[in-house]
Amino acid sequence: MQIPVSLERLVYEFSRFPGVGRKTAQRLAFNILQYTKEETQNLAEALIQVKENIHYCSVCSGFTDIDPCTICSHIERDQQQVCVVEQPNNIFPIEKSGVFRGVYHVLMGAISPLDGIGPEQLNLKNLRKRIEKNNISELILATNPTVKGEATALFLRQEFAGKISKISRLACGIPAGGDLEYVDDVTLMEAFSGRHTMNN
Amino acid sequence: MQIPVSLERLVYEFSRFPGVGRKTAQRLAFNILQYTKEETQNLAEALIQVKENIHYCSVCSGFTDIDPCTICSHIERDQQQVCVVEQPNNIFPIEKSGVFRGVYHVLMGAISPLDGIGPEQLNLKNLRKRIEKNNISELILATNPTVKGEATALFLRQEFAGKISKISRLACGIPAGGDLEYVDDVTLMEAFSGRHTMNN
Repeated sequence: MQIPVSLERLVYEFSRFPGVGRKTAQRLAFNILQYTKEETQNLAEALIQVKENIHYCSVCSGFTDIDPCTICSHIERDQQQVCVVEQPNNIFPIEKSGVFRGVYHVLMGAISPLDGIGPEQLNLKNLRKRIEKNNISELILATNPTVKGEATALFLRQEFAGKISKISRLACGIPAGGDLEYVDDVTLMEAFSGRHTMNN
Repeated sequence: MQIPVSLERLVYEFSRFPGVGRKTAQRLAFNILQYTKEETQNLAEALIQVKENIHYCSVCSGFTDIDPCTICSHIERDQQQVCVVEQPNNIFPIEKSGVFRGVYHVLMGAISPLDGIGPEQLNLKNLRKRIEKNNISELILATNPTVKGEATALFLRQEFAGKISKISRLACGIPAGGDLEYVDDVTLMEAFSGRHTMNN
């Protein structure tokens, strides 16, 4: 027996999602079969609308439904403190934590010579413009602590050294609530080299 | 910063899927943002079409896009051997294995007094009709080896005893490729009580 064509098509579409294999895709598709027609319509509409309404902010390149985004146009946010991230979705966890009151800049990637991504493929033109136009006091490099992210951070440090008074990098170390037993070597090395004195 | 409304809506829709939490829903939604407009349209269409085209077979209640389904109308399949399953999606793994050449009957659930599901809530009327009309030689009870599935199998055995010459139940035991160390007590008990002699 063949799986009916429409069902097979939906399974295929779901299996294209990251981390979703054929079995999970089937489970999701079976779930849709139990939806009412209205529920299915809601999901289909949400998909279409997200594509129509969400675009990149012309200033920071984050996801937004208005331009510039609510962060870039917020009067209470420090426009002189710019946090540089690799991807638009990297902004959400930082916003959720509430630790940062400045603005963002999305690079749209990280330097990765093997993938043919050099500095010229990154969203740097806009960042240079922002640095020239505004008086930026601090550039916080929040690219991921991976080979690509570190390479990108090093590049940005060299690129903007002398132009911005403070260029910083997020601390790397043992995550809060973590267990030494399960921490990998590189993280442990970073935690040791980044240790701070407690008795003064 | 608020997540844009359209994005939040899509995250909500994804988080309604079984086994999908808020973080996974966000990851899926961010993935959609990287889709082209056409790719998104394809997914939305697949959703709508599956709802429009797929319905329950009027004979076995399995999922199908034609009625009766390709299994029920297949001339080479043994119409006298009926495999009873709980849900329409239970048919797919059996079909994939290729071990069964008869037809199916979907109960649309299993007996579960705590959830208020008794025999009268199951799809039995159609099964009784099929048993009366056709000369069914074997009823294979393939409900899940769970409390609900076993209760349903026991009920069906009583219900159709004397009306069908052979009522069988799928074997329960250690799965092929499994490891004794990781097998639970109940499965092990079933494996022992279902053991077969090898020396005759």
